[in-house]
Amino acid sequence: MHRQKYTIGVDFGTLSGRAVVVRVDDGAELASAVHDYEHGVLTQSLPDGNLRLPVEWALQVPEDYRQVLKTAVPEAIRLAGIDPADVIGIGTDFTACTMIPVHADGTPLCETAAFAGRPHAYAKLWKHHSAQPQADRINALAADRKEPWLKRYGGLISSEWEFAKALQILDEDPEVYHAIDRWVEAADWIVWQLCGTYVRNACSAGYKGILQDGHYPTRDFLSALDPDFADFVDTKLRHQIGALGDAAGNLTEQAAAWTGLPVGLPVAVGNVDAHVTAAAADSLEPGQLLAIMGTSTCHVMNSDVLQEVPGMCGVVDGGIVTGYWGYEAGQSGVGDIFGWFIDNCVPPAVHEQALARNISVHQLLTEQAAAQAIGQHGLVALDWHSGNRSVLVDHQLSGAIVGQTLATTCVDTYRALLESTAYGTRMIVETFVNSGVPVTELVVAGGLLKNRLLMQIYADVLGLPLSTVNSAQAPALGAAIHAAAAAGAYQDVAAAAKQMGGRVRNAYLPIPDNVARYDALYAAYVKLHDWFGRGNAMMRTLREISATAQAGANE
Amino acid sequence: MHRQKYTIGVDFGTLSGRAVVVRVDDGAELASAVHDYEHGVLTQSLPDGNLRLPVEWALQVPEDYRQVLKTAVPEAIRLAGIDPADVIGIGTDFTACTMIPVHADGTPLCETAAFAGRPHAYAKLWKHHSAQPQADRINALAADRKEPWLKRYGGLISSEWEFAKALQILDEDPEVYHAIDRWVEAADWIVWQLCGTYVRNACSAGYKGILQDGHYPTRDFLSALDPDFADFVDTKLRHQIGALGDAAGNLTEQAAAWTGLPVGLPVAVGNVDAHVTAAAADSLEPGQLLAIMGTSTCHVMNSDVLQEVPGMCGVVDGGIVTGYWGYEAGQSGVGDIFGWFIDNCVPPAVHEQALARNISVHQLLTEQAAAQAIGQHGLVALDWHSGNRSVLVDHQLSGAIVGQTLATTCVDTYRALLESTAYGTRMIVETFVNSGVPVTELVVAGGLLKNRLLMQIYADVLGLPLSTVNSAQAPALGAAIHAAAAAGAYQDVAAAAKQMGGRVRNAYLPIPDNVARYDALYAAYVKLHDWFGRGNAMMRTLREISATAQAGANE
Repeated sequence: MHRQKYTIGVDFGTLSGRAVVVRVDDGAELASAVHDYEHGVLTQSLPDGNLRLPVEWALQVPEDYRQVLKTAVPEAIRLAGIDPADVIGIGTDFTACTMIPVHADGTPLCETAAFAGRPHAYAKLWKHHSAQPQADRINALAADRKEPWLKRYGGLISSEWEFAKALQILDEDPEVYHAIDRWVEAADWIVWQLCGTYVRNACSAGYKGILQDGHYPTRDFLSALDPDFADFVDTKLRHQIGALGDAAGNLTEQAAAWTGLPVGLPVAVGNVDAHVTAAAADSLEPGQLLAIMGTSTCHVMNSDVLQEVPGMCGVVDGGIVTGYWGYEAGQSGVGDIFGWFIDNCVPPAVHEQALARNISVHQLLTEQAAAQAIGQHGLVALDWHSGNRSVLVDHQLSGAIVGQTLATTCVDTYRALLESTAYGTRMIVETFVNSGVPVTELVVAGGLLKNRLLMQIYADVLGLPLSTVNSAQAPALGAAIHAAAAAGAYQDVAAAAKQMGGRVRNAYLPIPDNVARYDALYAAYVKLHDWFGRGNAMMRTLREISATAQAGANE
Repeated sequence: MHRQKYTIGVDFGTLSGRAVVVRVDDGAELASAVHDYEHGVLTQSLPDGNLRLPVEWALQVPEDYRQVLKTAVPEAIRLAGIDPADVIGIGTDFTACTMIPVHADGTPLCETAAFAGRPHAYAKLWKHHSAQPQADRINALAADRKEPWLKRYGGLISSEWEFAKALQILDEDPEVYHAIDRWVEAADWIVWQLCGTYVRNACSAGYKGILQDGHYPTRDFLSALDPDFADFVDTKLRHQIGALGDAAGNLTEQAAAWTGLPVGLPVAVGNVDAHVTAAAADSLEPGQLLAIMGTSTCHVMNSDVLQEVPGMCGVVDGGIVTGYWGYEAGQSGVGDIFGWFIDNCVPPAVHEQALARNISVHQLLTEQAAAQAIGQHGLVALDWHSGNRSVLVDHQLSGAIVGQTLATTCVDTYRALLESTAYGTRMIVETFVNSGVPVTELVVAGGLLKNRLLMQIYADVLGLPLSTVNSAQAPALGAAIHAAAAAGAYQDVAAAAKQMGGRVRNAYLPIPDNVARYDALYAAYVKLHDWFGRGNAMMRTLREISATAQAGANE
């Protein structure tokens, strides 16, 4: 009998970080601990409270990330009751694209007296959306010049990504921009904090940093954006790339003191929360589309073929695991649409009934919706309340519902909204398949997998077997799996995922009758999708009218 | 100083009848009384409760109408404190098309022992909708044979009207059909009860009875529908026509005993509730479009030109007053859509806020919607929850809303629904104007006129001055005005309306800025209208899928 070994996975989310202690042999999760970021998300002002931030800003304080290492990690180890000496590696995953401007030694600019009062010196969280003008410029120029990398991103670069966010700093605070030595993904910065070594992980460098086939956008392109931006890649971005599941370095004395882990412990290359979950679900084979379903849905999938898929977020060589093309797609709104509906569109009697039965309104509506025959409600909806990421890449789109009568109830509409998100996923799957990238299984992670009706609807709408991830803290488990690979306990991430990750295969199977019924409703969805999404500018016009009206009202 | 004279107007609605005592000189309403029909609307079973009625049936008991004469009329006279000897005439108006099968003396078949247990022997209320298969047959044959009268009804005959309802009886209970001596509008039957004389009023004979230019559908046409239907017009329908505002006869001794009014009192020719309201509003000039806005909206307007207007309900010579072409159009759902929204789509906090302020949810939402700038909500809706009467004449259509985001509130949607019904009215007005029938003023009657926001929206959306009827019981007043004309107190209905009826002219004027803003939103409505209403069959398909699913679920 051998002595059990463990790895630590640390998942850095939007509001907190979670550490989990995982047994290397079988992936058993012994204990976990969560630390909430002291400053959360800065949207109104800097920590000193003196400066009001513009709209669509979302900053973070890097020290909050370090605090997770100092508190949640030792707490998880303590709760697990293990000897830290039996920990053989640590891995992390992070939100993306979250960027930190740092000095050459990794110190964030916001931690220096000179820049503590400057908003652009802080970490820009993934959902900092105010760099849209910069993204627009990049996209227009890239399309104009037919830059070869553009098609790897479905034709559009996001305002969330590395280049747009950096260009915003140059535009708005050149002094901060010029003081930046390195423009670093938070995913890589936290690894740098652990092992003292800066390595750019292949995942975010590819998906968020426009690194394709070893090349970034050219100096010529950057110069055309702004002459002062010409050396952005050469001086602030380009750096050694680390393959996912490799070790970036070894735990420093300082980080050992923070975490209570042994000095010299292997530290895995950084990674992104969605992508690391594929390992936790053991869904790394080509054709296994992993959907992380929460307020929004992120889809990741490996393939052995490289194709241009319209509207995908990106395709990156080794972006999920080394050896495959990793594809990413997304739905801008899913759970947030259901939440909005519950909060805004459900009458008192339903709330009272849920309260009386001591269940949530979601549960009650789901139960009543489950009693309906498919199509009984006579409705079809578009799931674009937060815009459409894939496959239309248009955040000016909006929601719609068709087919209401005086007999339409909130149960009807709730079910129609559940279905609309499944239709959105089917549109993505069909776009992959029609582009020559096969999809054979849907694997679901994230908070929404506990809704059994929703899962069956997805299986029926997609006509695909649906599996569900085993772990309730899949990203942290995925990070721990990468740590095990980085520590050499397994040959590679895939081998580690087979032992430590897992999913309930065929948790939901499509019911042939239901599939046929949904085909008819999906045809209506496609018709709406193409007419509103491609056939006219009505939704964009309505948003413009609204913006103008609100601006006028505020004058 | 002359001794004041009075007329009585009696308005027979769907659930009750209302009598009002009106001063002939100036239309002052001295008192009114309401009598609820004992049997209301029979939708489940006959009065004995033994027989279950099929879906979409709606019957009434004619004796309930007589009870209004026996109770509400004397009560109104008592409350007014007048001497019945000073009453110079009585007039009535009725829902339409409500039909009663009677023997030659006017006795309803349901009042005879032989037929009291037969559903088809009862009055068929206007909203008895189960004769749609018969209406479909009539329409298909008429279109096939290019019957000249079809275009006078916008191309379609309704299942609510005289021919479809009669053909249903022949199809389903030929024994009852063959026992019918007269197939009588309730509007004319009640006059027959008052004066002992059967006169078909020109209004319902034209709008509901397909009487055009003195001709009904031919024997040849009827025979092609069903050989047994060939003599329907000749034996059961054709009868003396009475012009609106003429006297049909004089009060019988029996009716004088019921009402407490003098024997021999002039009784006005029957009329329809919507059409008689035009007199109450003094809106009888060409171009004055009267909208009676309640759960649904009925539009009536005089014109001196005869045109084919697509989707109108009908055009009838003298259908509103003698000497003009009377046009009718309609919106299937208006107030019922707002009511549905309040009941089904408004969250608890809003209900609680209304309760705390002791106002209705309608009032609260209206107040908050009024604070919005036009277009601020970013929404556009289709007002087809009850289908579309004019101008699409398609009851398989349904509601839709476009432009929802996670920031959309119930106030936003409520305002969008208010606006959608105004767009629906504008579509009707533009169809009239584009067909060569001018519309210069919108006159509003009905319960919704008390919503000031709604009224201003209509003025702004239509770009027309909007007037509101003075009377809160306009149909009954309109009937009293017709009684004054029938009694010879005025030269004709128009002259009587000028003195006794009235409206607040220009109660709401279009605000040029608002008109321009609504033009942009109306353009989106038109695009939706044409795509869903004419461009594809999606809404019909959704209804079919729903019907099939419900049938399957009930198996």
